[in-house]
Amino acid sequence: MKAIELQNPGGIDHLRMVERPMPAPGRQEMIIKVKATALNYRDVEIVRGNYHTVFPLPLVPLSDGVGDVVAVGPEVSRFKVGDRVSGTFWQRWVGGSFAMAEPSYQRGGPIDGLLSEFARLDEQAAVLAPAHLSDVEAATLPCAAVTAWHALFTEGHLKPGETVLSLGTGGVSLFAVQFAAAAGARVIVTSSSDAKLERARQVGAHDCVNYSSDPDWSSAVMALTDGRGADHIIEVGGPQSFAQSLKAAARGAQINVIGYLGGSEGAINPLDIFRRQVRARGIPVGSRESFEAMNRALAVNRLRPVIDRVFPWGEAAAAFHHLEHGSPFGKVVLDHTP
Amino acid sequence: MKAIELQNPGGIDHLRMVERPMPAPGRQEMIIKVKATALNYRDVEIVRGNYHTVFPLPLVPLSDGVGDVVAVGPEVSRFKVGDRVSGTFWQRWVGGSFAMAEPSYQRGGPIDGLLSEFARLDEQAAVLAPAHLSDVEAATLPCAAVTAWHALFTEGHLKPGETVLSLGTGGVSLFAVQFAAAAGARVIVTSSSDAKLERARQVGAHDCVNYSSDPDWSSAVMALTDGRGADHIIEVGGPQSFAQSLKAAARGAQINVIGYLGGSEGAINPLDIFRRQVRARGIPVGSRESFEAMNRALAVNRLRPVIDRVFPWGEAAAAFHHLEHGSPFGKVVLDHTP
Amino acid sequence: MKAIELQNPGGIDHLRMVERPMPAPGRQEMIIKVKATALNYRDVEIVRGNYHTVFPLPLVPLSDGVGDVVAVGPEVSRFKVGDRVSGTFWQRWVGGSFAMAEPSYQRGGPIDGLLSEFARLDEQAAVLAPAHLSDVEAATLPCAAVTAWHALFTEGHLKPGETVLSLGTGGVSLFAVQFAAAAGARVIVTSSSDAKLERARQVGAHDCVNYSSDPDWSSAVMALTDGRGADHIIEVGGPQSFAQSLKAAARGAQINVIGYLGGSEGAINPLDIFRRQVRARGIPVGSRESFEAMNRALAVNRLRPVIDRVFPWGEAAAAFHHLEHGSPFGKVVLDHTP
Amino acid sequence: MKAIELQNPGGIDHLRMVERPMPAPGRQEMIIKVKATALNYRDVEIVRGNYHTVFPLPLVPLSDGVGDVVAVGPEVSRFKVGDRVSGTFWQRWVGGSFAMAEPSYQRGGPIDGLLSEFARLDEQAAVLAPAHLSDVEAATLPCAAVTAWHALFTEGHLKPGETVLSLGTGGVSLFAVQFAAAAGARVIVTSSSDAKLERARQVGAHDCVNYSSDPDWSSAVMALTDGRGADHIIEVGGPQSFAQSLKAAARGAQINVIGYLGGSEGAINPLDIFRRQVRARGIPVGSRESFEAMNRALAVNRLRPVIDRVFPWGEAAAAFHHLEHGSPFGKVVLDHTP
Repeated sequence: MKAIELQNPGGIDHLRMVERPMPAPGRQEMIIKVKATALNYRDVEIVRGNYHTVFPLPLVPLSDGVGDVVAVGPEVSRFKVGDRVSGTFWQRWVGGSFAMAEPSYQRGGPIDGLLSEFARLDEQAAVLAPAHLSDVEAATLPCAAVTAWHALFTEGHLKPGETVLSLGTGGVSLFAVQFAAAAGARVIVTSSSDAKLERARQVGAHDCVNYSSDPDWSSAVMALTDGRGADHIIEVGGPQSFAQSLKAAARGAQINVIGYLGGSEGAINPLDIFRRQVRARGIPVGSRESFEAMNRALAVNRLRPVIDRVFPWGEAAAAFHHLEHGSPFGKVVLDHTP
Repeated sequence: MKAIELQNPGGIDHLRMVERPMPAPGRQEMIIKVKATALNYRDVEIVRGNYHTVFPLPLVPLSDGVGDVVAVGPEVSRFKVGDRVSGTFWQRWVGGSFAMAEPSYQRGGPIDGLLSEFARLDEQAAVLAPAHLSDVEAATLPCAAVTAWHALFTEGHLKPGETVLSLGTGGVSLFAVQFAAAAGARVIVTSSSDAKLERARQVGAHDCVNYSSDPDWSSAVMALTDGRGADHIIEVGGPQSFAQSLKAAARGAQINVIGYLGGSEGAINPLDIFRRQVRARGIPVGSRESFEAMNRALAVNRLRPVIDRVFPWGEAAAAFHHLEHGSPFGKVVLDHTP
Repeated sequence: MKAIELQNPGGIDHLRMVERPMPAPGRQEMIIKVKATALNYRDVEIVRGNYHTVFPLPLVPLSDGVGDVVAVGPEVSRFKVGDRVSGTFWQRWVGGSFAMAEPSYQRGGPIDGLLSEFARLDEQAAVLAPAHLSDVEAATLPCAAVTAWHALFTEGHLKPGETVLSLGTGGVSLFAVQFAAAAGARVIVTSSSDAKLERARQVGAHDCVNYSSDPDWSSAVMALTDGRGADHIIEVGGPQSFAQSLKAAARGAQINVIGYLGGSEGAINPLDIFRRQVRARGIPVGSRESFEAMNRALAVNRLRPVIDRVFPWGEAAAAFHHLEHGSPFGKVVLDHTP
Repeated sequence: MKAIELQNPGGIDHLRMVERPMPAPGRQEMIIKVKATALNYRDVEIVRGNYHTVFPLPLVPLSDGVGDVVAVGPEVSRFKVGDRVSGTFWQRWVGGSFAMAEPSYQRGGPIDGLLSEFARLDEQAAVLAPAHLSDVEAATLPCAAVTAWHALFTEGHLKPGETVLSLGTGGVSLFAVQFAAAAGARVIVTSSSDAKLERARQVGAHDCVNYSSDPDWSSAVMALTDGRGADHIIEVGGPQSFAQSLKAAARGAQINVIGYLGGSEGAINPLDIFRRQVRARGIPVGSRESFEAMNRALAVNRLRPVIDRVFPWGEAAAAFHHLEHGSPFGKVVLDHTP
């Protein structure tokens, strides 16, 4: 079968289409024919060679994808041939606290990802794809969508009527907008682009703040909430935006620390966590239980991931370039059909 | 000022319009001019004299209502003259567990209710009414709506995509339908009336089951959920329906035991709680914190209570008769404007 | 290798020592040399043939046990040869809600138990045994102890100063006494035997009630708690005792429905759950995360399981008889050393 | 009656004993004869004039104290004359989230504290003192002890076997040591004084780290926990120690941000909250429900606050000096008996 490997560290041009042996399922495993995969910024960092962890090479990238089950091991009980499934990001985080996730079992590094014709999945590390989604749409869920879900629902216990502040319009942030709106929350989005803010409004945002024209955007959030602040913050901006997030937070707010799209340099005084009486926590994607709960929500509310652009999977390098430099709004997906 | 008192036990015809002295606010209290009040089945029981607790008479009935603040005590800080407010059912349950509620501080018995021209409220036992609601709509919230909210959100942590089974179309059940739908849940409603089921669909129910034509309605719920069962059950039916609710419950389901509209006689084997692995709990209305959270959800989602019929408050007896015998769909409200 | 099989349904005398092929580990599996196993009432029911589920025979009984790792598969990362481990009751319930447990993966039925010389364990379904315990002690933990832990801590969030009412002195109840006392709770125990009550006091109970001499034992609990009632109840008695448990419950109390040692016949009015404002829930043992958390508590507090009697594993039938008819105080264990 | 007022900002020498009118109880209020009061660092800051909020003067300082009820208003139902009670720090935070606390209702500023012969308490803002404590001991609970309880139990859901790292030996930290030990946790304490560490061991600490001789004390914590880290951290040190706390934290650890005894200057990169996958939150003392739960734990476990030194209340200024400069181990208390 064909697969695309990162063969040498440090660059998108080190991705190579290779021939690999067809995998065979173990007792509780299955083989899927990959239909589509999707990119996350983590994948860009791994391929670029600036991810915080260095994995052995060659490595097949991409944690996100969907495929059809074509073979099952003798003890597989959760799935059957013909099912359409996604793998989970943390292969061994079935449920419970993050302490149950084992770092050496992340798909897309150190475990081979799905950028291949076929892939082998442990049945414990897979979920049924929502039936109403296309392959391209279903491929986008394992990492960014589960992260937003875990932050808002598994950890956040979001209630209708609460205010969610979603920073930017990256993958996690857009899923957060859709989920929060479906859950009856009020949603505020920030972006440096008025065009993107308008599109965010179309997928569920109630209010928008352009942080480029309004660098003190926390004041805008406070004004929009009558001085109350946001109850849940999807903090993907990094240290610079964290200082503003603290000012935009309601008493007791939950700040989900997820990323650093605005750069990783900067600092805050941690006493502001005390002075503002907020709760800040890291969000590490989520468990299979979160993924399954999220899929039920997608199905009941007929939610569809926002897709920016689809590339043939043979043009994976172009897709990586697009995610890094193309300023996409929505997910960048690879189509694995011939 | 005028007020309607229950003067003797045991009957709706013992309600009498009387003259009472105008109340004066204590240091942290305020006086409201009542604009509308609403009835709950508890009020019928109190007036009928078959409530489980007997209160001293005369008693002004009705826990639910809304009014305009016309005077405030010298230390009132939460409200000002002109605000439109509702009182809370439990005068002293500000927040936290039900252990913090003091039984002798329930409005509408033993504490005088709002069936009067003016009423005195402790500022700690009042909330701002949602601005988008009419007086008639806002009057309906303190008891039934807060009960549904407390069950589904404060205790239940309802997530989008979960299934809520709301039994019947009484006050608590209809609010549960609206709240659950706004929260992105799937909603199943039961009723003995196809007409009421159709109306329930219009306020948010996804699926309907007529328990009259289908006495084994738990099987219908199981079929609708592909054998998974309901995650949250609003159990207002009493012992007879509880046995069916257990069969309609998903593994780990939350059964909120609230009422006994189908009669209070009957029994279950408590081991079925173990065999079905469910969680059953009593729901005692809710705290002021729940009420305020609910009001934010009503505002963000522009939800409006379902009103069956409005009577002039001088015709309170007719309203009691209507709630008891008129098979209403939605709340029965009294208009206190002259 | 040797193993003891239940070969025909319906009786302890159908247990037979047989020769079975030595198991080999799969990729993520390991082989343990069993050092000790322990009995639960569930095992008696399975062997007797009156368990609620009928499993295919022959079956090796016993979910509880401990052994030394003697071989590991090529991908095992959590354990190494020489580690002393126990298997989990639910082979696939790593963490999260009970919905993640798969019924067909229970050890001791339908999956072969540990009543054998060697056994094969998935590394995901095993935990390190606490170092301070003997093999006989460590063997007793997977079912009864995890059940008590899951009820009081994973679900119950027991706090110091709360009152735990533990019914009887069976396996789950005695572990609950020890855990609750170590957690700073007040512990009340019931039994029909003053001698057993005295021994319960020695392992941590503060107060004791003889339900034989005092059939209205809920009144005794109320008196001991100044009318407040118990916050957590380990309800292993069945329908007859459940009615008393409801009366002994504090407002908001958690009743953990676990067993039916006093018989499975009887009924309650489920409205009493509403009237007493309690929370009743089934307890299905617990997850691997609960097991690991419990083991840390055992280690920090140097807790030791109460052992009633140890039999050589070749005399398993006698051990089953003793658990069923010997009125043990503490666990009945089988020693697998030659 | 006599009271001690802070009459001018900016100094302990501005405390003056004055004559004030005897207070009279409102309808739901009571008058206590103060028996003892206790100091917190907040009180020093208020008196010094460097607290973050400036209160109107004159102000009677001290939130903490205990007294005997000598008069009750006509509607008081929770207490009677002769009861021994403490006031709560947040007069209106009965229960629920911190959003229910009203900043203008803090005792000891802006509301007059208890440094007086008599004081007026709202019955909703008072709790019974634990019977086994002396007046001096009972006076110390409302602020520091409730803070430790709220962090570890109300928010933290501490379980037996978890590791608590308590920084320093100030008021909150010592209560945390006692509570955590009583709850079956493992307790690690830091201090710059070996003598204080030895005394911390006597009140429950299992392990001690001298951060003066070992500035990289997080490594010591990691070594003590076999590389796992602490599950709960009582972070009273401020920005400098926060950086070490992050390194000493287990995956998913809870860092309770409470104070800044090591100085308020410094900074961290907030991405470390993500990289270490921890939860950091501000702790704002706690609610009356937390106080009452804590008092039950004190009673069941016969815990006694650590007292450093008792001054006659007429020598309040000396007590303030001692807390600020005397390096106390335990609480500094004022005796109000003549």
